[in-house]
Amino acid sequence: MARPDGRTPKQLRPVTISRNWLRHAEGSALIEFGDTRVLCAASVEDGVPRWRRGTGEGWVTAEYAMLPRSTDTRGARESVKGKIGGRTHEISRLVGRSLRAVIDFKAMGEHTITLDCDVLQADGGTRTAAITGAYVALADAMKHLRKKRNLKRNPLTGSVAAVSVGIIQGQPRLDLNYLEDSVAQTDMNVVVTGEGEFIEVQGTAEGAPFDRAGLDQLLDLAVGGCAELTEIQKKALAG
Amino acid sequence: MARPDGRTPKQLRPVTISRNWLRHAEGSALIEFGDTRVLCAASVEDGVPRWRRGTGEGWVTAEYAMLPRSTDTRGARESVKGKIGGRTHEISRLVGRSLRAVIDFKAMGEHTITLDCDVLQADGGTRTAAITGAYVALADAMKHLRKKRNLKRNPLTGSVAAVSVGIIQGQPRLDLNYLEDSVAQTDMNVVVTGEGEFIEVQGTAEGAPFDRAGLDQLLDLAVGGCAELTEIQKKALAG
Amino acid sequence: MARPDGRTPKQLRPVTISRNWLRHAEGSALIEFGDTRVLCAASVEDGVPRWRRGTGEGWVTAEYAMLPRSTDTRGARESVKGKIGGRTHEISRLVGRSLRAVIDFKAMGEHTITLDCDVLQADGGTRTAAITGAYVALADAMKHLRKKRNLKRNPLTGSVAAVSVGIIQGQPRLDLNYLEDSVAQTDMNVVVTGEGEFIEVQGTAEGAPFDRAGLDQLLDLAVGGCAELTEIQKKALAG
Amino acid sequence: MARPDGRTPKQLRPVTISRNWLRHAEGSALIEFGDTRVLCAASVEDGVPRWRRGTGEGWVTAEYAMLPRSTDTRGARESVKGKIGGRTHEISRLVGRSLRAVIDFKAMGEHTITLDCDVLQADGGTRTAAITGAYVALADAMKHLRKKRNLKRNPLTGSVAAVSVGIIQGQPRLDLNYLEDSVAQTDMNVVVTGEGEFIEVQGTAEGAPFDRAGLDQLLDLAVGGCAELTEIQKKALAG
Amino acid sequence: MARPDGRTPKQLRPVTISRNWLRHAEGSALIEFGDTRVLCAASVEDGVPRWRRGTGEGWVTAEYAMLPRSTDTRGARESVKGKIGGRTHEISRLVGRSLRAVIDFKAMGEHTITLDCDVLQADGGTRTAAITGAYVALADAMKHLRKKRNLKRNPLTGSVAAVSVGIIQGQPRLDLNYLEDSVAQTDMNVVVTGEGEFIEVQGTAEGAPFDRAGLDQLLDLAVGGCAELTEIQKKALAG
Amino acid sequence: MARPDGRTPKQLRPVTISRNWLRHAEGSALIEFGDTRVLCAASVEDGVPRWRRGTGEGWVTAEYAMLPRSTDTRGARESVKGKIGGRTHEISRLVGRSLRAVIDFKAMGEHTITLDCDVLQADGGTRTAAITGAYVALADAMKHLRKKRNLKRNPLTGSVAAVSVGIIQGQPRLDLNYLEDSVAQTDMNVVVTGEGEFIEVQGTAEGAPFDRAGLDQLLDLAVGGCAELTEIQKKALAG
Repeated sequence: MARPDGRTPKQLRPVTISRNWLRHAEGSALIEFGDTRVLCAASVEDGVPRWRRGTGEGWVTAEYAMLPRSTDTRGARESVKGKIGGRTHEISRLVGRSLRAVIDFKAMGEHTITLDCDVLQADGGTRTAAITGAYVALADAMKHLRKKRNLKRNPLTGSVAAVSVGIIQGQPRLDLNYLEDSVAQTDMNVVVTGEGEFIEVQGTAEGAPFDRAGLDQLLDLAVGGCAELTEIQKKALAG
Repeated sequence: MARPDGRTPKQLRPVTISRNWLRHAEGSALIEFGDTRVLCAASVEDGVPRWRRGTGEGWVTAEYAMLPRSTDTRGARESVKGKIGGRTHEISRLVGRSLRAVIDFKAMGEHTITLDCDVLQADGGTRTAAITGAYVALADAMKHLRKKRNLKRNPLTGSVAAVSVGIIQGQPRLDLNYLEDSVAQTDMNVVVTGEGEFIEVQGTAEGAPFDRAGLDQLLDLAVGGCAELTEIQKKALAG
Repeated sequence: MARPDGRTPKQLRPVTISRNWLRHAEGSALIEFGDTRVLCAASVEDGVPRWRRGTGEGWVTAEYAMLPRSTDTRGARESVKGKIGGRTHEISRLVGRSLRAVIDFKAMGEHTITLDCDVLQADGGTRTAAITGAYVALADAMKHLRKKRNLKRNPLTGSVAAVSVGIIQGQPRLDLNYLEDSVAQTDMNVVVTGEGEFIEVQGTAEGAPFDRAGLDQLLDLAVGGCAELTEIQKKALAG
Repeated sequence: MARPDGRTPKQLRPVTISRNWLRHAEGSALIEFGDTRVLCAASVEDGVPRWRRGTGEGWVTAEYAMLPRSTDTRGARESVKGKIGGRTHEISRLVGRSLRAVIDFKAMGEHTITLDCDVLQADGGTRTAAITGAYVALADAMKHLRKKRNLKRNPLTGSVAAVSVGIIQGQPRLDLNYLEDSVAQTDMNVVVTGEGEFIEVQGTAEGAPFDRAGLDQLLDLAVGGCAELTEIQKKALAG
Repeated sequence: MARPDGRTPKQLRPVTISRNWLRHAEGSALIEFGDTRVLCAASVEDGVPRWRRGTGEGWVTAEYAMLPRSTDTRGARESVKGKIGGRTHEISRLVGRSLRAVIDFKAMGEHTITLDCDVLQADGGTRTAAITGAYVALADAMKHLRKKRNLKRNPLTGSVAAVSVGIIQGQPRLDLNYLEDSVAQTDMNVVVTGEGEFIEVQGTAEGAPFDRAGLDQLLDLAVGGCAELTEIQKKALAG
Repeated sequence: MARPDGRTPKQLRPVTISRNWLRHAEGSALIEFGDTRVLCAASVEDGVPRWRRGTGEGWVTAEYAMLPRSTDTRGARESVKGKIGGRTHEISRLVGRSLRAVIDFKAMGEHTITLDCDVLQADGGTRTAAITGAYVALADAMKHLRKKRNLKRNPLTGSVAAVSVGIIQGQPRLDLNYLEDSVAQTDMNVVVTGEGEFIEVQGTAEGAPFDRAGLDQLLDLAVGGCAELTEIQKKALAG
């Protein structure tokens, strides 16, 4: 049972990271997981949200969105509809939470970094590409902040990568594209640190409930995929 | 290291389900997980959303919300703010998705059941209480629908229960209350069928990333807790 | 001409007040007028709205809302619609205004008490039940505030109760349920102090205009009903 | 104790009604109660709101609003704030309800008349001026509709006028201006048919509760004032 | 080829300016261009928007809106729709920008003047009438401000008038009414100072693109029309 | 007086058009005017907006937006704010109007093409880059539509390009970048057909009013710039 693009079950799509794709942002990356293309921009601002003021700690947050024609059929613009949909909200929260897991907020001081992850083209795995690309933009923004504010410690305590995995006709597969995603029985998004520990595990039964064995297989696959992504991030940041 | 309410690590809080708490709804339950109190109402309506019309299949959806003073300090009403927050969106989607995993939509015909889960009092675990109580309301609403529309097959293909688990100072614990939830290093919500298979697994590192061993312990704990909740649901529905 | 539930024209439905139904709120009451069930929560906060700052006076306000399935057919959630309807607005303002009539704002100091009145189940008279229950929650919250802030004078200058009255087929009746409310020719909501004086009189011709004699009969009926409600409030607060 | 503009307690302000002030509307009137100036436009449209379709009955509704600088200090535009305030909602509902009391909806057929009441200048009594002026615009729009659709019966079953009354330092007064309104202890808006029967009675204790005697005095005053307004409406419509 | 109202191609409609039409506003004018009727109110407030604080400079801004029945068929109220349409936004910005071109913000000090331009009746040219009338209201408000704050210099550096021009069946015409506006091939709004210089030129091809010769003819026509309007403004302000 | 990037006054920035940058859209172009980078996507849909149904004519519309970090400092997302700003509205309308000037709607049949112009990076002239790029996307989408629906005539009756011009310290310049734009005394956006005729002329006095001679110089400059852009469009579409 071949995959639609000829990959082996454990194979990632071609991944490219174009670092500093934007001129104004303190950190940025255009990341591609195959045809999925997400523009990640990190903005450094002085100060923190009201509820965090006076704590001496920083904040990292994220906003995810899709351009109207990133998808096969045009979607209505959320700004025009006047409200943000549940899926957008959910993914924005996931991206922010994932990145905050590797931040030493005390070391940051009262600064805020906002990660804007805008999907220019979608072919499955946009949220995992967003997290993986956002980390690169964040790393550059943090470097900028350290220098500018002369921070003693590095507020980044690790790296973060994410990948989707799923079971299709009984077969566990890594990094699903849209075609695969829409027929998967089980779908899981896994966020892993550079050291292979879990930050977030979100598994969902799409068709039928899944058992512990399936869950275990998917986790193995995801940990392997994230290790590869970690290497690609390192190369991009070394470039 | 004792739990704040004296439970053992594997012990649920006292759970009560008051079935048919509401007079108008086709199914309803006031569920309590300790001091957490959620009112679940199931409403049956003819017809389905526009995108599903003409398919002959039904639909099940959910809306979760908290009363302003369900919490320790009053929260602003989302209707007054004019928009729904990300957390509300995320949990509403989780509840709907969890229940849809045990529905045979063909057997339902073109009817919609909406589950309203309103948190009257919050003390941790509101989303898992909501799912567990909503299943009871749904079961009654489905019985109502079967009878009224003379459906041949039972559209319910199984039962659903959910519980939160977490690691606190290295110790895995079942069914966290608010106090525990706010200090947990890892926090996981697990949705399980009556037959012990997974519908949804959502694990989040709050403080530090977690490893595979921790994940495994939490899953074991959750499966056990859900088995107990399944028995409580059965008793309520038999009552 | 019998009433649908067998009451005499001057008879209230069974009224119960469950005081301190909520754990977090400074005052709370679950009030029932027959099948109408309203959860009233009073929240004490330091400070007052911007336009009142620096006056040394407190503020009391209210928000009324109905759960989607409190009614016979499910209503859309106002938070989902993104705006509050006219009826909700109107009743919230009425509840707040009614309670403010028995407050000595100077004695309160710059604190705000917000009354949340959420209708869990509706069978006519939800606004009058809300006012009557909110007074009980407010009394407890005020006691809490007096103690905590060591206030010299009692900011409560009296008590408040409310009831609906209406004319059905020429007959004036007290405390209409939904069935009666929907066929009344004239419908009136009356808010009265514990000493029998008027705070608010709102009479509306539903079918045909009404004359002075009808108005007088309804006012008599309402004043009597409120006197009974005042006794029930006293008993609850003495409990 | 003289009134600020020298009137006797039972005296209306000068009232003028400029009929057909607008070219496009099927009926319109610029009404002035002293310095209060409200532009009322009646628009006739085919069809009725969805919930009324197929009943053969018409509908009458109203929208009230204030121009930003109708008042002493500029108010923010509700279209800019993106939501309608409670007071606006409440008055729009009152105006619509008042006019519907004199409509024979069957005679109207499935047509809708919308009354737009825009306050150009405010000096107290804007809601009562709006109702009184809207009736004139409505009468002309109804004439237009009768002719155009060749209706057999007149859908208007009577006329409507409204006035505010209040108690100031113990003295009952008719048609309060803004200065008086802001110091009144009791404030009442009364809507009366051309035949002197009540459509709506809304009395509110502003400072202290009021007794039955005060209520009776205010009602007498209001009925007298509305009788005068009815004459002024007749003259305008005869013109 | 006669114009619908018998004017010559270079003729304005009758223009009237009723200065100080409102009692509360610091400056106001009801301006009429034929049947187009716009109420312009200028409100002076202390302080400036946040982004301008501490600069010592003032601010002038404008809000344009149409009453629902100013037009031939009733339009939905933007406050009810909960959002402002693109056309409203665009014209509000144009009016504000046009007036700011003749302001010496330093001379104003940190005060804000808001121009509310509400279209009571529309027959083409509402935005140009709004600008022309708003200037008159602004001039009075500025006089008020100068006196009250004892400003040394006059913050008004000139006057502003505006007119629409268009090409209809090849013929350039001044001050189009609605009938002409809806059939014009090219439509241009021109804002000119009292000294005949341009503040804003907005030309739009409605049917077919236009050439330089057509553009030149329209500009000539507009400059002439604005010179007449300037005289009418002067007379109004001298009155 | 040199330009900040060393160009002559009549020189465009380097312009590149990457055609078919998106996989899903029926037409698309990533256009760059120097550092300004706009992604233009054309989406073809069957059917037209409600008000145009049954006319047999098509429709073309546009939506313009900026990514939050396209600018020097991050701007709040309009979807998060819940409303579209005036500038966004104004430019969306301009882009749509400009493209509609070269469409034969009868030839299109009842189809809609939506142009999404998302600014990825901003350095002045984003609206003119959007129009120029949108034309290329539109041309490809129209080709797609002609083929798919077998249209007889080409619905495109010409081409469209746009450029900004401005006067800086008395010197007229072509294609302002952000630095120049923010100091220009006069700023003009000109939309021209491939045959050199005007579709839209929008000139604004930023600092001081401008005279006819300045206006004429700017128009000459703009017509020349647009002729160059037309050639670049042709080359891209021939590629």
